[in-house]
This record gives sequence, structure tokens and C-alpha cells, in this order.
Amino acid sequence: MPHIDLHNDRPGIVGLFQYRPETAGPLMELTEELLRGQSTLSRGERELIATYVSALNECQFCTLTHATKATAQLPDGMLGALESAKLSALLRIAAAVQQSGSAVTTGDVAGARAAGATDLEIHDTVLIAAAFCMYNRYVDGLGVIAPDDADTYMRMADFVMERGYTAALEPA
Amino acid sequence: MPHIDLHNDRPGIVGLFQYRPETAGPLMELTEELLRGQSTLSRGERELIATYVSALNECQFCTLTHATKATAQLPDGMLGALESAKLSALLRIAAAVQQSGSAVTTGDVAGARAAGATDLEIHDTVLIAAAFCMYNRYVDGLGVIAPDDADTYMRMADFVMERGYTAALEPA
Repeated sequence: MPHIDLHNDRPGIVGLFQYRPETAGPLMELTEELLRGQSTLSRGERELIATYVSALNECQFCTLTHATKATAQLPDGMLGALESAKLSALLRIAAAVQQSGSAVTTGDVAGARAAGATDLEIHDTVLIAAAFCMYNRYVDGLGVIAPDDADTYMRMADFVMERGYTAALEPA
Repeated sequence: MPHIDLHNDRPGIVGLFQYRPETAGPLMELTEELLRGQSTLSRGERELIATYVSALNECQFCTLTHATKATAQLPDGMLGALESAKLSALLRIAAAVQQSGSAVTTGDVAGARAAGATDLEIHDTVLIAAAFCMYNRYVDGLGVIAPDDADTYMRMADFVMERGYTAALEPA
């Protein structure tokens, strides 16, 4: 049971968005820009960064939510995507950010650049990782319950992949 | 020196906002709503929560930025504010969130409620703490340099207290 009464039974972070629409607006826009906006990183690659950080933070709801979308949008699945040296180097940066901002070293950044990452890709990786350190804490800090059936995650993923994160509060 | 070339020399997170205005928009709106929007927590109290989490994350730029605004907006300063049992209980929740979302216990929440905190105040405390786990990592993860003179922080604080966080990219 969540720590506070959300007055709705929408799953995961959507219940929090409905409880507090004033903060939901910018949060949904941030997610839309980071994970689905214009980028040289594919949507699947960005969902994988989100999944990885959420797993490191042990946030079940966010891990399952974004793993479902990463799997659906990566042509060779999550494991196949790791064969990219660039994505692996970006994931190393994301793992450092999950620990602490100051854990990111000039060596981590040089490694990503040597593997072909641009400054903007490095920027966005840091911000995606940082943003999921927020979302994961928001969800778990309020004791939101993660649904435990794969169908719910598939349905939410299909909805977002079709209509975007900013539509999260519209009726599914 | 920042890990990437920001093509501007604005201080701290403002340099990141100018580098990537697409993500700056929702980030500035989120901060404005959380720290200056309608709330039963005063602006000073909310800046104190932001300061505390930033200090726990050892983010020099964010700690000095928000400590300046907390001090300016709390009638009895930051130490005086701690005499409030409610604020102290909310800070205990914020400290748990800084560790991990799942570190927040039902006892922490019950303690805040017993000290007079509403559900919305508990929600906003969790989200402020979570958001600063993002901002702190964003700033330090990209190696942004914190100015080391108090005047810069005072000038930035005066600007935000007068015009709001969403004006951060306007000429100071």
C-alpha cells in the first residue's frame, strides 16, 4: 500500500501523476524529451539506459516498465544492444551517475568518446541516469506498489510507444 | 572544466540549461512548482529540504545555491527552522530518500504525520528529495564547476527569488 492515500488506483508512477498533476506535467515532458525526443541514440537504447539505472536502484516498477519498452524497441533485444561498444561505454557512465555525480571520471567520458559517443549523447546519458535516480526514488519513496503481471506492463508500453509519455494521464 | 564543451560560461546548472534548452524547460518548471509553487510548506522550508539533500549528495553548487535562498527566506535562518518538529520529521524522510526510495519506512511517514505533516507535504518532500538526487547528479556528473565566491550565489538567489526558476535562462 502506498505511504499516502493517492485517491486513485492507477499503476505505479501514473498514480502519483494523477495525485499531483502540477508536478506530473514537467515530469512527463522531461521523460518524453529524454526517451523519445530527437536524438542520435535510438529509443530502445535510451530505454535500456533507463532500465539499467532502475535495476541498479532496485526499483521494480521502473525496471519492468522500461525493460518492456527496451525489449520491444531494440532489434536484437537488450543483450544484443550490449554488443555496441558505444552503448556499453555510455552504460558505464550511467552506472557511475547512479552511484554519485562525482563518480563519473574523465576516463569514463574519454572512453565513451573513443567509442564514438558525441558530447550530446554523453550529456543525455548523464541526464537520463540522473532522472531515473529521481523517478526510482519517487516511486519507491512513496511505497507505490508495482503490478506483478506482465500484461499490465505490456499494455502500458504499447500505450506509451504509440502516444508518448505526455499522454500517461489520458484514459488507457 | 566540465566533461563536455557547453559553449557558454554560465554558472553551474544554468550552463547545462543553456546547452540543452529542450530538457531545461521541464526541469525549470519542475523546480518552480516544487520550490515556489502553491504549498503549505514555505519557500524557505522547501529550499532547506533541497539544501539538505544536496549536502548529503556532496554537491557543492546545489548546496550553496539553495542554502543562500533558504537562509534568505527563513525568518530564523536554517538552524531556527529545525526547531519545527514537522520540518525535522520531513527532513528525516528526505534523508531516507537520498539513500534509496525503499529506505523510507512507514515509521518515518507516521512520524511526519504525528508532527502535523499532510499527505501532500509528505509527497512533495519525497519528490523534492528525489529531484535533488537528479539535479545533484546532473551537475556533478558533467563536471560542472561551482563558482567559489558568495557574491555569485547571492546574485543568482536574488534573481530567482524575484523572477522565479523558469527565468533562469534570461539575461541576469
